Amino acid sequence: MSTEKISFLLNWHATPYHLPLFLADKLGYFADEGVQVAIIEPNNPSDVTEMIGAGKADLGFKAMIHTIAGKARGFPIQSIGTLLDEPFTGVIHLKHKSGIDGSFESLRGKRIGYVGEFGKIQVDDLAKQYGMHPGVDYTAVRVGMNVTKSLQDGVIDAGIGLENVQMVELEEWSVQQGRSADDVQMLRIDELADLGCCCFCSILFIGNDNFIQNNPTKVTKFMKAIKRATDYMFAQPAEAYDHFVEIKPWMNNIVNRKIYQRSFRYMSRDLKNVPRDWNKVTNYCKRLAIVDDAFVQNQTNQYLSWDLLPESAPGFIHPTIDTGVLPPAVPVVTEEFTRSACCQVPVKTATTTVA
Amino acid sequence: MSTEKISFLLNWHATPYHLPLFLADKLGYFADEGVQVAIIEPNNPSDVTEMIGAGKADLGFKAMIHTIAGKARGFPIQSIGTLLDEPFTGVIHLKHKSGIDGSFESLRGKRIGYVGEFGKIQVDDLAKQYGMHPGVDYTAVRVGMNVTKSLQDGVIDAGIGLENVQMVELEEWSVQQGRSADDVQMLRIDELADLGCCCFCSILFIGNDNFIQNNPTKVTKFMKAIKRATDYMFAQPAEAYDHFVEIKPWMNNIVNRKIYQRSFRYMSRDLKNVPRDWNKVTNYCKRLAIVDDAFVQNQTNQYLSWDLLPESAPGFIHPTIDTGVLPPAVPVVTEEFTRSACCQVPVKTATTTVA
Repeated sequence: MSTEKISFLLNWHATPYHLPLFLADKLGYFADEGVQVAIIEPNNPSDVTEMIGAGKADLGFKAMIHTIAGKARGFPIQSIGTLLDEPFTGVIHLKHKSGIDGSFESLRGKRIGYVGEFGKIQVDDLAKQYGMHPGVDYTAVRVGMNVTKSLQDGVIDAGIGLENVQMVELEEWSVQQGRSADDVQMLRIDELADLGCCCFCSILFIGNDNFIQNNPTKVTKFMKAIKRATDYMFAQPAEAYDHFVEIKPWMNNIVNRKIYQRSFRYMSRDLKNVPRDWNKVTNYCKRLAIVDDAFVQNQTNQYLSWDLLPESAPGFIHPTIDTGVLPPAVPVVTEEFTRSACCQVPVKTATTTVA
Repeated sequence: MSTEKISFLLNWHATPYHLPLFLADKLGYFADEGVQVAIIEPNNPSDVTEMIGAGKADLGFKAMIHTIAGKARGFPIQSIGTLLDEPFTGVIHLKHKSGIDGSFESLRGKRIGYVGEFGKIQVDDLAKQYGMHPGVDYTAVRVGMNVTKSLQDGVIDAGIGLENVQMVELEEWSVQQGRSADDVQMLRIDELADLGCCCFCSILFIGNDNFIQNNPTKVTKFMKAIKRATDYMFAQPAEAYDHFVEIKPWMNNIVNRKIYQRSFRYMSRDLKNVPRDWNKVTNYCKRLAIVDDAFVQNQTNQYLSWDLLPESAPGFIHPTIDTGVLPPAVPVVTEEFTRSACCQVPVKTATTTVA
């Protein structure tokens, strides 16, 4: 037997930036489009491309680098849109005890946590640039979804994470520990890797090739419901969060509200795959030897049935929007956030016009 | 392409009684058996039998009544073992405001929350016995996994839940609200429905028929790893919980520790499907017109490669075990728990010897 339900596998346990998906479900937007969706959450993010590739899930979320890597390994997957545009990613550490000074060289002798396989490939590639060898000059530790906890527990000295998720969790915890939010620092991978402006961690809507090919109308309707939820979220960000915590009551706390606030400016408004970002990350994957020169990008915008916005100027960052989910006493823009929000520098990729 | 990984879909978001599964993964017992497992969590419990039936997940957890109902509806699923033996289930309410006095009749005019379709069938069947009509004498409200929150928010006056999960959550919250844990009361469905001793909510290991038939060795190995984790949990319950909260740090709190403590005595030691319970629930499903007389029970113990314990005496309840996960000041056996732990009464089904 088969099922009419679209199974949708998240890239991570439910997190505030997944809001448009949950909202489309809760407000009946999927039902209005005539589609049924079973939302499922992984325990190991490294399972996602394989599960979708094998048709165990139809659609899901996954970062761009993994979407490219999955395809290159033979998993029949493709991106059909963008959820989160290029949140900053980097090597996060706690300054007061890490002994890390902002240079990659200061990671020598350290234990560096990573989520899954490609995190290690990235760290090893960076290290190579600096003449460092895995297992000799540093220890890579696979920690799955527990980057934050592993840093808190001192199991690792530094770990790969997102500016809008793990940094927020650690900043909140740091303050509770009697230290300042500034104790949480990030070495941005894009700066270290000389990728040019911004980094490579856009979170995409992906799907199984066969499922998409056999169900183009269903996929189009699914994305239409997501767009409607996205529009609602941009129009009424606080109300949207209220809906979200009705579904996930344990996220009705300050740290998840901050994650939502910090994630908000990365949320894609029109859900398009951005060619510039795809080119940049494809090139990065070539450098990492994850794909070869013949690689054809596994992405399409053909299931987005609305007018797409023009591609933003290189280095452009959407301004911070006050979502209204934080108590009045909590600043919307923290110092840490401002420092992370660079990307105003000229872009270094060959295809980009330098301002 | 296919995948070697077994996808395993939980019946609910991760909960302390799922511990053997997470432990088998974390301690490498699956790896020792040569099996890989992708653990995934649903957002809507009503998706589980359909997803497994459709082969979108290979194995999973599900309550016995849904496992029978799923099969009766044509989903090719079967039970290959038991995780949790008959935790008490009932209609939970908050005495101080519910206006419910312990009789089913006092539910007249109330809003009764249920998880999914079969919860409503059960409530409607009970109501029929008492001459009450859905939509007229009471309102059934589908709340999915949010039974606890819906009771807290006053969206419902009563809701179907488990003694070892939702009651614990509500008791903890009640005390925080300045009321006593005793404010949380349960009308036990088994008593109301005249089912005989205990109720019908055993949580089972289930799987897709084709997957099981095509992968008997893999399934046997999977269950062997689970048994090893179960043995570890019974031998070292506190250490087992420490491992669990390494994976799920947000469950390292008093309410989840209490859920673990309360769930512990329901945990199956040998993981067998219990014929007596199956007969009882099959008969109940016949009464609910979910299955007909020709129904063949979709359960087997053939993938359990160890000696099974003899079936316990009717009405037997494993004594409370102090798992050691609660602070010394917190009583292991609460008054509420003792009151719920009846089932010492003679059994009323035809096949049972009355003591």
